[in-house]
Parts: sequence; C-alpha cells; structure tokens
Amino acid sequence: MQSPTTLKLELTQVAGSFKPRGAFNSILSQLDRAKEAGVIAASGGNHGIATAYAARQLGLRAEIFVPVISSPVKQRRLRDLGAVLNVVGDNYYGALAACIERQKQTGALDVHAYNKPETLAGQGTCGRELNWQEPGLDTVLVATGGGGFIAGIAAWYAGSARVISVEPESSHCLAAAMRAGHPVDVSVGGVAADSLGATRIGELSWEICKRHVERAVTVTDAAILETQGLVWQHLRMIAEPGGATALAALLSGVYKPLPTERVGVFMCGGNADLSVLIQP
Amino acid sequence: MQSPTTLKLELTQVAGSFKPRGAFNSILSQLDRAKEAGVIAASGGNHGIATAYAARQLGLRAEIFVPVISSPVKQRRLRDLGAVLNVVGDNYYGALAACIERQKQTGALDVHAYNKPETLAGQGTCGRELNWQEPGLDTVLVATGGGGFIAGIAAWYAGSARVISVEPESSHCLAAAMRAGHPVDVSVGGVAADSLGATRIGELSWEICKRHVERAVTVTDAAILETQGLVWQHLRMIAEPGGATALAALLSGVYKPLPTERVGVFMCGGNADLSVLIQP
Repeated sequence: MQSPTTLKLELTQVAGSFKPRGAFNSILSQLDRAKEAGVIAASGGNHGIATAYAARQLGLRAEIFVPVISSPVKQRRLRDLGAVLNVVGDNYYGALAACIERQKQTGALDVHAYNKPETLAGQGTCGRELNWQEPGLDTVLVATGGGGFIAGIAAWYAGSARVISVEPESSHCLAAAMRAGHPVDVSVGGVAADSLGATRIGELSWEICKRHVERAVTVTDAAILETQGLVWQHLRMIAEPGGATALAALLSGVYKPLPTERVGVFMCGGNADLSVLIQP
Repeated sequence: MQSPTTLKLELTQVAGSFKPRGAFNSILSQLDRAKEAGVIAASGGNHGIATAYAARQLGLRAEIFVPVISSPVKQRRLRDLGAVLNVVGDNYYGALAACIERQKQTGALDVHAYNKPETLAGQGTCGRELNWQEPGLDTVLVATGGGGFIAGIAAWYAGSARVISVEPESSHCLAAAMRAGHPVDVSVGGVAADSLGATRIGELSWEICKRHVERAVTVTDAAILETQGLVWQHLRMIAEPGGATALAALLSGVYKPLPTERVGVFMCGGNADLSVLIQP
C-alpha cells in the first residue's frame, strides 16, 4: 500500500493562491516607500491579486498590470480588491514591460512576481509551514512558473527533502534550463499559461533550483485538466490548472513514488474558472 | 472587534457532506444484515451518496432512492459510486415511500437519513470533533433539514454550548415545531430543498432538539445564495445551498453574536451545482 500523500492547500489561501506570502514580505520589507508611492506589479493574475490584497490590508494604493490572457475571474477579483487594473500585452512579459514603464513615472514600489529575494523568501514560508505541519516528508512536488515558489521551497528544504518541479509540457522553462545547464527561453501556452506561463526561469530562482531541485518533470495539459476534475469530484476542492499541475504528475504516473515514500504536493492556487469544471 | 468565527468544513468530507458519519455508524452497527441483503436508503441526495460511499468502502450492495428534485450533480455521483439508483417522487417523501416498499421485497438494511439512533449518533461525531478541534465555543450554528445533524450535535454539546438551528424560510420544520411545541408539517421548497427540504422534524430529533437547541432562526433564499457566492469568492471553497445556510444566518445578521462570543459554524455540504456560482 502506498504511503498517504499530503496536500498543502494553498488553494484556500487568502487571495486564492500562495502568492500573498511573497507579496506581503516584499511590501513589508520596504513599507515606507510603499506608503509614499503605492505599490505596482505585473502578473499573470495571482501575484497581482495577492499584491492588491496585501495593499488593501495595509491601506496602500496598488496598480496592477495583467496580460489579456489573464482569466476574467482574476480580473474581476482585482477590481473587487480596489486595484487600478491595466490589461495590456499578449502575455506576462507584455504586461511586465508596461508595468516597468509606468513604475518609472510613479515611483511606486515594484513588487516583482518572482525575481526578488523578498518574494522568494516569502514564498518559502509555505515550505517551512508544510515541514512544520508534516515533518519528515521524503519528497515534495511543486509546480513551476517563473520559479519563485519552487525556489523559496527548495531554499527551505535545502536537500532535507527531494524537491521535484512539475511543469506543463506547454510551458516548461525550468525543465529546459536544467537540460541546457542555464536559463533559456521557451515558448509558452496551454491551460495553465495564466499562472505558470513564464518564458524563462528567473535568475535568482535558477541559482537556487540548480542546487536544490532534484528533477524537473512535465505533464500534459490533458493530465492537468483531468486532475482538476478529479480534485473537484473527489475532494470537493477547486484547483486552477496551475494549482492542479503538481498533483497531475502523481496521478498521471509521471512521478512514481516508492511504496514507502512520503510525498507532499503543493496545491498552489484555486482561482479557477468554474465553467470548465461543469459536467453534463 | 468580533471574535474569530470557526468554520467546520464538512463540505470537504468524503462524499461531500457530513452524512457518511451517520451512514457508516448505521451500517457498521448491523453489518451482518447489510452483508447478507445489502443496504437501501432514500435521500434528497447527500445521505444517498454517503450510504453508497460507505457501502462501496465496505464491499456491500447499495440501492438508493432520490426524488426528481435531486440535483444532477448528486445523481451522477451516486451512479459513479456504483449504487442502483431509482429517481422517483416529487420530493424526499415520495422517494422514501418507494424505498420502504422496495425494502420489504429485498430485506436490505434500511439506512434512514435521520430518524434512527445510529444515524443521529454518527452525525453527532461532527460536534465531538469540532469540540476537540476548537474547545470552548460559546455558540454553534447548524443547518436543519430532517434534524439528524442538529440532533446529533445538540446531544453532544448538551448545553455546554448554545446550539442555534438555521433553516431556509422556504423549509423550516424545526422552527415551526418549536413555535407549535410539537412536530408539525410545513411546506417545502426553495434553493436548499434537495438537502434541507423535510416537511416534518423527525421524532427522535425533536426529543433532543426541544431540550438542547436554544433557538431556531430562518434565513431567506437570497441570503443563502449570497453566502454561497461569498464563500467561493473569498474562501475559495464550494458550499451547496444547504451547506451555506448556517453561515448565512451570521452574514445576513439574522444571528448577531456578542463581540466576545466565540461562534462555530457547520458548513455541512459541498455537493453544489457549480453553474450557479459562475459570474459574468
């Protein structure tokens, strides 16, 4: 019999994903600047929601840039949180370019989604928390986008558990970097693009991942969608595609643990479009 | 500042509601009979799913009767669990009549949804569990259908916490019984009818409720639907209408706790039709 699997439910986190951990840590570490000029961020959606959420909790102005592929659910949530929302660019990088331009004008605190030590350290608290809640795991599975989440988690475990990266075949910048031995550009698309669609692993993340991530596997979009459906049908939880990606590696057999291996899976986001989960 | 509220998340329970507690306890207490002739139950849906789930786990045959108002989501789940499904009757009582008739033919173990001591005792484990997880609550809010869940919980607390019943205005058999001083028939309808739509409080439940339930309040269907939406938007959890009913009393102000009052809310089911939660 397989050892039980532990799911870390960041899909019920405030703002619907793990991202507030990094956003709060970034903002609180430069709070004077943020109070003076507000905060600004570019995002596929979840980091923007987290930044807007943190800003609202701290009484700060927030301006968020998301690309047109960002889901309507996420855009609505951003508006509900009172952020100034700019929908611009075909993908994350288009939104990021516009964000950088605007930041020069306003001087707002730039809360980068992943390439910032404070963001990485904040995300890493999720690994620390799981380690406290479920000590002694052999392996943890983590979905990788720009690499902020996995780098934070890998920095925490630092070899004390096997850290496995899981990416969609359709967006796999860490697997490509590990093959090449350095960050490279990849094409981006597929069902999880709005949360995991990074064309290149962040430099800071790469420095940590190359040391402490044992392997980077990929899963198909079909496996991600099937996992998303199974999570709703059997666990009555809602995972967005990016939030179901790490578990998809286990359910599709891409990652096969030993019978005695104790596995933790980060279910990292729940800002899903419910319409895709409706069954006939 | 209001004391924090504790939510007991039975909406993530196996089979999507608290009902497996009672179903397992009923079946395990007469397992020889169940092994011989299978189990049979009538249900608005959730109790049937729980009975089918328990039967599958225990390797038993299950035959389930649900009324035509039972949601397609629940009917699908019943089929997936391998139960013989009969969709019959305009409401729970129509399904129950057909179930009783059939039970006489097959001799299967009748797993009644609420009017059976083993069912009530099983449901009561949810109160015991919350009391263990969050000791010292002043008040717990519980949605009432036929009364099995609230009776089990009220029997557990037995005055050590204030137990408040919450029903939809559209189905309120316990509020009506408390007004009349004895069980009476009420009309049944509204958004939570498939989980809370009982025309009369069960006799066993009434004996416990009249002693240990302090008050029976009602909420509007609109308040239930609004709560269901807020639970998804802010907590990223899915409650079905009946599962959002107890919390609706708090959010709509029908039950107003004192600032220092520590309140627990049973979120009792998550077998929702996701289509009602989709926003434009």
